[in-house]
Amino acid sequence: MSHKYNNGGITNGGGGGGEIIDKNDEMGGVILGLDGGTTSTICVCMQFQGQLVDPLPILGRAVAGCSNHNSVGETAARDTLVQVMTEALTKSGSKKSAVRAVCLGVSGVNHPNDQERILNWLRNVFQSHVKLYVQNDAVAALASGTMGKLHGCVLIAGTGSISYGFTEDGREARAAGGGPVLGDWGSGYGIAAKALTAVIRAHDGRDSQTMLTDSILQSLSLPSPDELIGWIYADPSWARIAALVPVVVSCAEAGDEIAQKILKDAVQELSLIVTAVVKRLGMGGEDGNLYFPIVMVGGVLEANKRWDIGKEVINCILKTYPGATPVRPKVEPAVGAALLAWHFLRKEIDGNCHR
Amino acid sequence: MSHKYNNGGITNGGGGGGEIIDKNDEMGGVILGLDGGTTSTICVCMQFQGQLVDPLPILGRAVAGCSNHNSVGETAARDTLVQVMTEALTKSGSKKSAVRAVCLGVSGVNHPNDQERILNWLRNVFQSHVKLYVQNDAVAALASGTMGKLHGCVLIAGTGSISYGFTEDGREARAAGGGPVLGDWGSGYGIAAKALTAVIRAHDGRDSQTMLTDSILQSLSLPSPDELIGWIYADPSWARIAALVPVVVSCAEAGDEIAQKILKDAVQELSLIVTAVVKRLGMGGEDGNLYFPIVMVGGVLEANKRWDIGKEVINCILKTYPGATPVRPKVEPAVGAALLAWHFLRKEIDGNCHR
Repeated sequence: MSHKYNNGGITNGGGGGGEIIDKNDEMGGVILGLDGGTTSTICVCMQFQGQLVDPLPILGRAVAGCSNHNSVGETAARDTLVQVMTEALTKSGSKKSAVRAVCLGVSGVNHPNDQERILNWLRNVFQSHVKLYVQNDAVAALASGTMGKLHGCVLIAGTGSISYGFTEDGREARAAGGGPVLGDWGSGYGIAAKALTAVIRAHDGRDSQTMLTDSILQSLSLPSPDELIGWIYADPSWARIAALVPVVVSCAEAGDEIAQKILKDAVQELSLIVTAVVKRLGMGGEDGNLYFPIVMVGGVLEANKRWDIGKEVINCILKTYPGATPVRPKVEPAVGAALLAWHFLRKEIDGNCHR
Repeated sequence: MSHKYNNGGITNGGGGGGEIIDKNDEMGGVILGLDGGTTSTICVCMQFQGQLVDPLPILGRAVAGCSNHNSVGETAARDTLVQVMTEALTKSGSKKSAVRAVCLGVSGVNHPNDQERILNWLRNVFQSHVKLYVQNDAVAALASGTMGKLHGCVLIAGTGSISYGFTEDGREARAAGGGPVLGDWGSGYGIAAKALTAVIRAHDGRDSQTMLTDSILQSLSLPSPDELIGWIYADPSWARIAALVPVVVSCAEAGDEIAQKILKDAVQELSLIVTAVVKRLGMGGEDGNLYFPIVMVGGVLEANKRWDIGKEVINCILKTYPGATPVRPKVEPAVGAALLAWHFLRKEIDGNCHR
């Protein structure tokens, strides 16, 4: 089947294969890239051009709340997605009919059922010729570091932690990303929960005293460790707990051994998430020296001073995979999603042209 | 101030000290003992007699749902408590005016504020002369093994885990009981969460394969580990996850090393909870040989076959405290609460008589 660009959209051409189409006719219109996380959802609208240029032709950007259906339920998640896409189009002065492709990178997409449900929502919003792609938000994060190319590995360590990898021949693998019950221990939540536990253990005599006690209580304005249980269960949201990571880093930098141990364990966990993916995909080649990018994303891997978790994780991975090359993305994950949509659409058009 | 028994209740006598009261006049009426856990709330109504006799004079028993305010909210928790006490009185053929003392052992009571709130509810239900006691449910569990005497240590390992200890001179200490975020790792929830994590880690290549994968998936009727994330977040209630403990025990008994490691770690954690309390209270004496009871309560410590977690915990504690003596309660924690009320009331009456 061939595709032909027409009136700002892609229509399925009625003819068989073998048509010759002028590539330039295929360009134009806009694409939407969306990054849906547990705290916010960001959508960008980008002009669709034949080549990726610098700066990227971003026409508009909109921000909304959480769109993770596991957190807010299906109806709220869908409404948020539709709202943020509509706003991005309005801000860019584009009509919905100009949309040619949409790529959503959404946290909580862990299963084909999750993808299918979101695709069904999108099918009711866009005309049938619009190309729709739904991915885990980690895939959009990877694309933000590789300018849309699905090759290499991404490590996200924010509130949660996850790694995704893609080989150039299209194989993929993932590790972690199961949330706190399923042991995302290198994540911001994991680090902070261990620090809170260390405070309780010091308080009830199970473990040594730690600077974490005073630092955490001060940061939460609580008078005593006895108040922590009430504080936790008043609102056990993962992001609220993960917000304590900078306190743990400060204590580690000040020489607290328990805080240092928590961060060292997190480094091991995060390295393992990446190397598990790299190993399964054989991404480093036989000797581990083959080049591949590791896109590093998330608050845990950034913004540290002397105790740099991201750097430690890279050092740990390099011991086994010297070809691994860290990449700090220059664009945000929503732009990564738009770049993914660009690549998918471009590939489809090229495929049609070369037949 | 003296107290005088009158018309089935205690009234604060208007006179000063020095009255001589016939002890037998002080007896009669009923006491209520209540055990409020995260899955159910049980209330027993017991006749108040001068001596504890075997069998105990339990007149009625009622069961209701959860009364942990952290789980169901304040209004539902209060309504459940009132309902179950009313039902226990009705079943025992007693009137509310016959109640002389009430002891509530409620999970989620971690702080003086929690106690004060529940006491306020009770003050609106009972006449002002009724003696009211509110404790953490672990204290009622201890009393169920010591026939109401507050001496020794209790270890609860059910969905959560906690230890409480009391010395004969009235000092007390507690360890753990903070729930999963604050690291109750030897609990049923902790064991099951580690087992689920082990399945995910084996699946994504971070750790070795384990029997837990097939056993847990079969027990949950799930086709693949990919389905576990959806299963967890469909209903992350602690008790639902803790229900997987027997599967972990079976795998350990069948020789699975990862399951065995999880249970061995749980034994260490549970022993540490107890020894932290014993150490703080100096309960074992200088050489650890001093006698004290350890009341063992909860599903994790019972019902195992070859891999007996409770027995392993005791063996571990005995290495440091040879005077520790395990006790399996013969009565339920609600009766423990009633026995506590009996002791408190008896002490008060004796105190008045001896002046």
